Amino acid sequence: MQAAGWRNFKLVVAYEGTAYHGWQVQPNGITVQEVIQGALQRLTGAATVVHGSGRTDAGVHARGQVASFRSRTGMPTAELARGLNALLPADVRVRSLAEVEPGFHARKSARSKTYLYCIHNHPVADPFSRRFCWHLRRPLDAAAIIQAAGCLVGTHDFSSFKAADGETRSSVRTMFNVRCRRRGAYLLLLFKADGFLKNMVRVMVGTLVEIGAGRRPPAEMPAIIAAVDRRAAGRTAPPHGLFLRTVHY
Amino acid sequence: MQAAGWRNFKLVVAYEGTAYHGWQVQPNGITVQEVIQGALQRLTGAATVVHGSGRTDAGVHARGQVASFRSRTGMPTAELARGLNALLPADVRVRSLAEVEPGFHARKSARSKTYLYCIHNHPVADPFSRRFCWHLRRPLDAAAIIQAAGCLVGTHDFSSFKAADGETRSSVRTMFNVRCRRRGAYLLLLFKADGFLKNMVRVMVGTLVEIGAGRRPPAEMPAIIAAVDRRAAGRTAPPHGLFLRTVHY
Repeated sequence: MQAAGWRNFKLVVAYEGTAYHGWQVQPNGITVQEVIQGALQRLTGAATVVHGSGRTDAGVHARGQVASFRSRTGMPTAELARGLNALLPADVRVRSLAEVEPGFHARKSARSKTYLYCIHNHPVADPFSRRFCWHLRRPLDAAAIIQAAGCLVGTHDFSSFKAADGETRSSVRTMFNVRCRRRGAYLLLLFKADGFLKNMVRVMVGTLVEIGAGRRPPAEMPAIIAAVDRRAAGRTAPPHGLFLRTVHY
Repeated sequence: MQAAGWRNFKLVVAYEGTAYHGWQVQPNGITVQEVIQGALQRLTGAATVVHGSGRTDAGVHARGQVASFRSRTGMPTAELARGLNALLPADVRVRSLAEVEPGFHARKSARSKTYLYCIHNHPVADPFSRRFCWHLRRPLDAAAIIQAAGCLVGTHDFSSFKAADGETRSSVRTMFNVRCRRRGAYLLLLFKADGFLKNMVRVMVGTLVEIGAGRRPPAEMPAIIAAVDRRAAGRTAPPHGLFLRTVHY
């Protein structure tokens, strides 16, 4: 496969997920991977597979999704980046594009990822953040959320927070860090782990919100994790509050 | 007109202007005033005129537009506010609703207003702020903008910054304050005045951007003001970066 003239590229991509059926190409609707591959093909004249660091669900956003692709194009990187942004729709932007060593692969080389979940906790919704935050009217107890979120840190089997249809060999992941910050009426939840199962952040957030609303005590979290059973955790938070923020290499 | 049982209300409204032909009812398209009046009529059963503090152009947003209306409804204010938000589209939200003294009028009682104009100054556009910022690729000289903006403060005939079709008796206004802040790649321009002419903020911003881009020296601003001629100023900045932020009473 590897021929003379093959180059390997790393893309950092931001997208508003509202209009997309997620990252990965699928038959049911338009995806971010698909529009990037289409733009690359128009630009370079060759069908190109773009590998993302991982899938994002329908409606989920990304500030720093990373993707890699191989191409024989002779275009300078700055020209490729400008050309892609000229062809891509306004809700998908290439933030940076660099030529990287042949061994780099967006998914296989990733060491960890950070996701951000944004909650707008206020009696009245905000027209400007409605596409980017889960709006919850009732006041949430941030201290209870922080206490429960702390239990997620460490190496656990996260099966309780995995979508029922998520097929992965092992459900063990290491959560390096969970941070919860209040910014006025906004509650920002940051999760950094070596990997995430399908829907994992959204189920964690749905569970933390039930704790913040006083429907479960924060001390229940270790038992929810230990149950290794999706039914032990809370509902799945909606996709539009979720951002893939950074992929770490 | 004033009968027993008439009550006077003050609304603070936030709206994303993207989908609207501005605030004021007009034949060409849907407006914010119209959707609020429609919701009030459904709620109270009576046709109601809602007076805004002033018009906003098509595509302009508001965080704190103020409106007033008189009604004979017996509904408690909290119920009216909740009812309006249940009926209004998601891009228009009533932030607060209060019963006020009979003499209060959103436009006539206003003492000053603050507008915010948001510029995203970065080589690559941002999918998340694209509806709310004017995206400008080339680096702007914030110091030049601040110097020129300072000249706008004070009492001036602002005819140079008035839309050609803006009919008002006097074009003299007092600008209390202009502030320019950088927040990362964002340039935020705040204008506080006792009143604004049609397109005035957008023409001021268009002119300041030409100065920030080095196409005019900042020292030219006093002459642009003194010209009292729209042709002396720069182009009109696009509406989607503009927010009516606060109306002061």
